[in-house]
Amino acid sequence: MKSTNIAELEKTTGLLWKKILSGSKFIKEIMDGNATKVLYAIYMIETFHYTKHNARNQALVGVRSQNVSDRYIAYCFHHANEETGHENMALRDIRSLGFDVSLISQMRPLPATETLTAYLYWISVQGNPVQRLGYSFWAENVYSYIDPVLRALQETLGLQDSNLKFFIAHASIDQAHAEEVQRMILDNCKTDQDFGDVKYVLENTLSLTGRILDDVWDEYEKFRKNDSNRYEFLRDTKLRK
Amino acid sequence: MKSTNIAELEKTTGLLWKKILSGSKFIKEIMDGNATKVLYAIYMIETFHYTKHNARNQALVGVRSQNVSDRYIAYCFHHANEETGHENMALRDIRSLGFDVSLISQMRPLPATETLTAYLYWISVQGNPVQRLGYSFWAENVYSYIDPVLRALQETLGLQDSNLKFFIAHASIDQAHAEEVQRMILDNCKTDQDFGDVKYVLENTLSLTGRILDDVWDEYEKFRKNDSNRYEFLRDTKLRK
Amino acid sequence: MKSTNIAELEKTTGLLWKKILSGSKFIKEIMDGNATKVLYAIYMIETFHYTKHNARNQALVGVRSQNVSDRYIAYCFHHANEETGHENMALRDIRSLGFDVSLISQMRPLPATETLTAYLYWISVQGNPVQRLGYSFWAENVYSYIDPVLRALQETLGLQDSNLKFFIAHASIDQAHAEEVQRMILDNCKTDQDFGDVKYVLENTLSLTGRILDDVWDEYEKFRKNDSNRYEFLRDTKLRK
Amino acid sequence: MKSTNIAELEKTTGLLWKKILSGSKFIKEIMDGNATKVLYAIYMIETFHYTKHNARNQALVGVRSQNVSDRYIAYCFHHANEETGHENMALRDIRSLGFDVSLISQMRPLPATETLTAYLYWISVQGNPVQRLGYSFWAENVYSYIDPVLRALQETLGLQDSNLKFFIAHASIDQAHAEEVQRMILDNCKTDQDFGDVKYVLENTLSLTGRILDDVWDEYEKFRKNDSNRYEFLRDTKLRK
Repeated sequence: MKSTNIAELEKTTGLLWKKILSGSKFIKEIMDGNATKVLYAIYMIETFHYTKHNARNQALVGVRSQNVSDRYIAYCFHHANEETGHENMALRDIRSLGFDVSLISQMRPLPATETLTAYLYWISVQGNPVQRLGYSFWAENVYSYIDPVLRALQETLGLQDSNLKFFIAHASIDQAHAEEVQRMILDNCKTDQDFGDVKYVLENTLSLTGRILDDVWDEYEKFRKNDSNRYEFLRDTKLRK
Repeated sequence: MKSTNIAELEKTTGLLWKKILSGSKFIKEIMDGNATKVLYAIYMIETFHYTKHNARNQALVGVRSQNVSDRYIAYCFHHANEETGHENMALRDIRSLGFDVSLISQMRPLPATETLTAYLYWISVQGNPVQRLGYSFWAENVYSYIDPVLRALQETLGLQDSNLKFFIAHASIDQAHAEEVQRMILDNCKTDQDFGDVKYVLENTLSLTGRILDDVWDEYEKFRKNDSNRYEFLRDTKLRK
Repeated sequence: MKSTNIAELEKTTGLLWKKILSGSKFIKEIMDGNATKVLYAIYMIETFHYTKHNARNQALVGVRSQNVSDRYIAYCFHHANEETGHENMALRDIRSLGFDVSLISQMRPLPATETLTAYLYWISVQGNPVQRLGYSFWAENVYSYIDPVLRALQETLGLQDSNLKFFIAHASIDQAHAEEVQRMILDNCKTDQDFGDVKYVLENTLSLTGRILDDVWDEYEKFRKNDSNRYEFLRDTKLRK
Repeated sequence: MKSTNIAELEKTTGLLWKKILSGSKFIKEIMDGNATKVLYAIYMIETFHYTKHNARNQALVGVRSQNVSDRYIAYCFHHANEETGHENMALRDIRSLGFDVSLISQMRPLPATETLTAYLYWISVQGNPVQRLGYSFWAENVYSYIDPVLRALQETLGLQDSNLKFFIAHASIDQAHAEEVQRMILDNCKTDQDFGDVKYVLENTLSLTGRILDDVWDEYEKFRKNDSNRYEFLRDTKLRK
């Protein structure tokens, strides 16, 4: 694959992020300075849930890949190794706000989160073995897009870096990862079909991630209106803004 | 599980269908009498793609289920047996309109179709072993909801029953299946959790199916505007309305 | 595949059975009229363990098969349906002798049993999709080979047909199954490679089954010498011969 | 788990190796100074076949493990990464003897090799998640047992270290791995059951490996008697001793 293709993936990523960020009530609430700890916690609970599976489905790509380079298989296992346990950073960030996290791992994720998780396993266990790189392509390189959101969140809630370890740790890890992903794409995508499959997965995984923001927002609305008891453990009034 | 729960599942199904049918441009086009053979074909191509996996993921529930009744496991295999090859009915219906179907099985499904497929495998291979019954609950009982759409389609395009074999055959098979599904739910859902998991899967699989209608509509728009060459093989002018 | 190939599979099966039956101390003990209820029970415990997986790995063949006839896929699911729960017949037979069966499902199978089980999953989930027919070929047609052993067992221990339901029920079911298996082999083996793969699996699965007899014998010896406490629940003196 | 348990695993390993090495005609031939390049090649072909799967089934342990430490999951992925592509060392060693290796990857492994492979997947995807450590325990520490065999082979055939890269490379890698495996066992085996499962897998995987030596010997005998055309590509007379 040529570097012009990388540019096309970058352009696609940018357009999709723009669509997601501009259409999301969740993002608007934060950018308007109205974020609350509960809103952030509800989002981080879902982050915990899908992150828990990322090392696993990444490793599955290596397990089942045939007719790819050993270097790509090794990359899958190496990357899985590095991502192992990162969901616990999400949990620690929620706890750092003062919330009780003991029930979180037993909660069923929201539908959009479960759908993204399902899709990541699906594209990892069948189809073109290189296609999961389309997910890594955008997921290892989100900070230019979400940085303003993280800043707004931090400012509104007076959060320290120690309350956003998941995002801040990944921001630095992901820089190296993003370069590795680009190299893997350039080395392992040989055909237009390969490139098309990477792009397809990029688009669908980013869209499905956008839907998590919508599900989080809907749950937050229900929480505020007392229409749901899903997040009773976040109702400690000392913490609610 | 009690029969009041079945009533709740029916109510949930009805509300979701109402939302899907009333919000879909695809449905509106058909109900307005503006359906074309191409619109129907694009939809049936996606039907082919997800149907191809239904027997398989149904069987997987039986393969992996522990601590459920033998009768439920046997049901999974029996039902998989009955659904095997039904995707070919969808293909035959497309061919019956005069279209060339030779390329269809090699096409990558639209993102919403691939997402539904991925989700059906996911809920089949892990989580509560009874949860897939939530999908069967609505999927084996769609005709009261889509019957007016099928009639409008048939009338606008002058289609015979032989052009809609997939739907017409299922309408009669599914009556028996729907009763079996209800019995399986009543026999195998012992707890509120079981019922909640069935309902969760009902809602998410029906919502994800609704999104297929949206993807189909978007592709149809691109086709009409010549913005995509995905369906070049449907452009035979004799067949386009 | 031609019927001459079926004859070759039959010949291979006969030779392997002869080797297994003539070399097995377990079989010799029974044919010499020295069987005990404990010996039979130890064997049936292992029968329980591998039978528990047979419907499941059979169904997996249908789940993963590509480029085979729908009829073969449907056969896999249909056959899985029919085999579901048969392990409970083995358990009932053990109970019918007066033994307590409550601990059996929690016991880890003997190594040879676990190895056969592992191998059946392996040949079901990868490789030539028709190869598992090599297992079914001999497994659905064992009675001409083991009938003398069953008679000796029954005579020595004074067992009724109700104490051997697993074998007696299968004897009648399997007649129809054996014919179906032959038809599936004839219909679905198109190449020498297909035939070779069926034969390979026939030989290896029958050999691995022979090793279960050896493991059972070794455990029986340990039981008699009080060298193992694995079967303490079979030590009820009223039942030991 | 206590270090006394490690001692027990070591003792079990030693006893099993003694039994395998003393009972194997394959080993005797080599120790008697009668090894040939063909004998070595037939063995290395099987080594190629099972090694090809080792990184993959190792990674699967990490993919499916629940309720184990993140460190153990990370170890599985890390170890998989390190083992990726090692089968190619086996291939290079065969090529270094002058043989044509182009057909090897398409050959079906011998039954004993396929059985070991199947078993390693089985114990990796279900059962006690720590049990595969029983395989690693002996497999990462074979050199004290097989060193005399390798020396005899090298002397008889006049082989350089560059003809035995698979074994020589592993000898040095495995020293570090063996320590890591012991640490993983000590850290992750909490109960007698855990220890029992590790020991069970140690014994069965080492026994199944011993059977590969028997299958290799049987094929070598057939090769010498011209009873099989499986290894025609090894018949180049310049290379046969």
